[in-house]
Amino acid sequence: MLERFKVPEKDRVYVRPEQVRAATEAIFQKMGLEDAGARQCADVLITNDLRGVETHGVSNMLRQYVKRYGDGSQNPRPKVRTVRETSTTATLDGDNGLGIHVGPDAMRLAISKAKQHGMGAVTMFNSGHLGGCGYHAVLATEYDMIGLCMTGGGGASMVPTWAAEPRFGTNPVAWAAPARNQPPFLFDVASTQIANNKIGLARRLGVKLEAGWIARQDGTPVLEEVPVPDKYYMLPFGGTREMGSHKGYGSAAVVDIMCCTLSGIGPGFISKKGGHFFCAFRIDAFTDPEKFKDDMDAFLEGLAKTKPAPGHERVLYPGLSEGEETAKRNREGIPYHREVVDWFKSIGAELGIPVELTQGTGPGPRGR
Amino acid sequence: MLERFKVPEKDRVYVRPEQVRAATEAIFQKMGLEDAGARQCADVLITNDLRGVETHGVSNMLRQYVKRYGDGSQNPRPKVRTVRETSTTATLDGDNGLGIHVGPDAMRLAISKAKQHGMGAVTMFNSGHLGGCGYHAVLATEYDMIGLCMTGGGGASMVPTWAAEPRFGTNPVAWAAPARNQPPFLFDVASTQIANNKIGLARRLGVKLEAGWIARQDGTPVLEEVPVPDKYYMLPFGGTREMGSHKGYGSAAVVDIMCCTLSGIGPGFISKKGGHFFCAFRIDAFTDPEKFKDDMDAFLEGLAKTKPAPGHERVLYPGLSEGEETAKRNREGIPYHREVVDWFKSIGAELGIPVELTQGTGPGPRGR
Repeated sequence: MLERFKVPEKDRVYVRPEQVRAATEAIFQKMGLEDAGARQCADVLITNDLRGVETHGVSNMLRQYVKRYGDGSQNPRPKVRTVRETSTTATLDGDNGLGIHVGPDAMRLAISKAKQHGMGAVTMFNSGHLGGCGYHAVLATEYDMIGLCMTGGGGASMVPTWAAEPRFGTNPVAWAAPARNQPPFLFDVASTQIANNKIGLARRLGVKLEAGWIARQDGTPVLEEVPVPDKYYMLPFGGTREMGSHKGYGSAAVVDIMCCTLSGIGPGFISKKGGHFFCAFRIDAFTDPEKFKDDMDAFLEGLAKTKPAPGHERVLYPGLSEGEETAKRNREGIPYHREVVDWFKSIGAELGIPVELTQGTGPGPRGR
Repeated sequence: MLERFKVPEKDRVYVRPEQVRAATEAIFQKMGLEDAGARQCADVLITNDLRGVETHGVSNMLRQYVKRYGDGSQNPRPKVRTVRETSTTATLDGDNGLGIHVGPDAMRLAISKAKQHGMGAVTMFNSGHLGGCGYHAVLATEYDMIGLCMTGGGGASMVPTWAAEPRFGTNPVAWAAPARNQPPFLFDVASTQIANNKIGLARRLGVKLEAGWIARQDGTPVLEEVPVPDKYYMLPFGGTREMGSHKGYGSAAVVDIMCCTLSGIGPGFISKKGGHFFCAFRIDAFTDPEKFKDDMDAFLEGLAKTKPAPGHERVLYPGLSEGEETAKRNREGIPYHREVVDWFKSIGAELGIPVELTQGTGPGPRGR
């Protein structure tokens, strides 16, 4: 994550992961979810926070989830229904369950089909926020599979290249592949220049948006650094046509097709709805998985040891900082903005659940 | 394609597609390919030229193919061998056949597996240039399937974000999906800022490269417009980290994993080899394909009718200009640079094959 999106040091409170996990789980239980579901939801959010993907952790999203359960717009006890199924595929009606609640089991269905037949893919409609795609894609790697996950639709955020009207959400895609000793490969990106939640984060942190990140209301890319404006559209990654925004636009369109039209609900910008897509490829259906994992180690280590360009300390590979951050945060605690900790305490009091978030050790001399 | 890459009007010769197709087929036959293989190879190249993707048509690539057959570095009579296979997957040894020769049948194998089981995927190693991914992905759409194709490896062209050494080729990806009346969706892009062949084209046309398209030899992005330098590296799409180059880099890494490591040859930058990946999803394994195609029409038409931003005439969707260009070029002829026509005549004389390339009608008053 770019430096500007990190919580400023003075506002950081290091919280032990198991504490924030317990508090989050208790909140979901209070919202009416069964125990396993609450555990699942907390696992998605805390895993994201451990990976350093705080845009999809408790800070940005939990408040909104609580609001949606509170006003009855999200179903805490979804009965997921199979609409169509083959040996390798399925389309599921998520019964208005939150994506972080019903998504992981949809991915596990794709994995179980891949286990039997080499590949599996599942589309899901009528389900809420997925909490990012990375968590779901990574599930496949635990079974020596390559995971692919997409989520998108809605159509109110991103303008296509040269367009004045929005047609897509941020429509992220994640691919994950296992290695042996290196942190697994995890490529998890929005089809927009930045994830929507990062804009919220930028507003909260009071930092500026880079030139080429957003568009004016008439679709023109904003080509200077600006504070987050009240009204804007998101640009496809690339930003401008010359810098390849048609690739971000096309990526968003693929996500819309795989998540929305393939799941039967039609284009996101027409239905105003969204969907998810989960896919798993069993490695030994193609090649020896032991050799594959050794090769992946060589691949990932080779990328991380690539000579850096002037002005840079090292080359990262997709998933490396997430792996390193997870080890570090498990040790030192997760650095939340103190506002987040305050929110946990107040929601705990409001809901009548115990919330214990003691200050973790923080990085200390070793980590600095 | 950006205007700068089009053949300048004064140098254009409009050639009837069936003539250049016949000449191309005859050249491949002369190189030692069996008739069906020569027909297949010509079809890939002419289809690309008809779509306006001249970077992957006869202009850039045919000379190189002829050279490779001529010096024995490409096998004109490959016996493709199945290395591993399941009901839904296969890994193929391409026996050093050209990708445009053996690739389409690999895609058809994925299609036939999807026909039986809902999905199919095939990796292929030991095979040459694929002629772009779009042609192969589109094959799936003729069977009411969604097609995915990737090709990559080698590792001598693209520097990862912040890296001073190259680790990837241009590693393109294509997704294709059928519609009913609209030209099919075809998203076909390199993981670099521009396709490698476009740099050759820019050199031939004498046009400049945009800021942020290439890197210096030390990996630093070149942030001003420049003529094509003798030595350079390609940048991942996005160009700089702030503009999302980690997305292009990650996309290249996914392609390398699916084409190289999954096919068993290991990472492209280590083996110095490349591979291909072909995948098909049968639409009716997820949803009603008739509704899907109607929805795709609404999706694609909706995108094309989106209000354009100031300064732009209209919004394109991925595949629209390719569809329109195909209709136009079938009518008017394909606009080749006169050098290309001259080359066809000289190679025809050299190989002793008849090459008839008469000037087509050109756009005429209607098309201008």
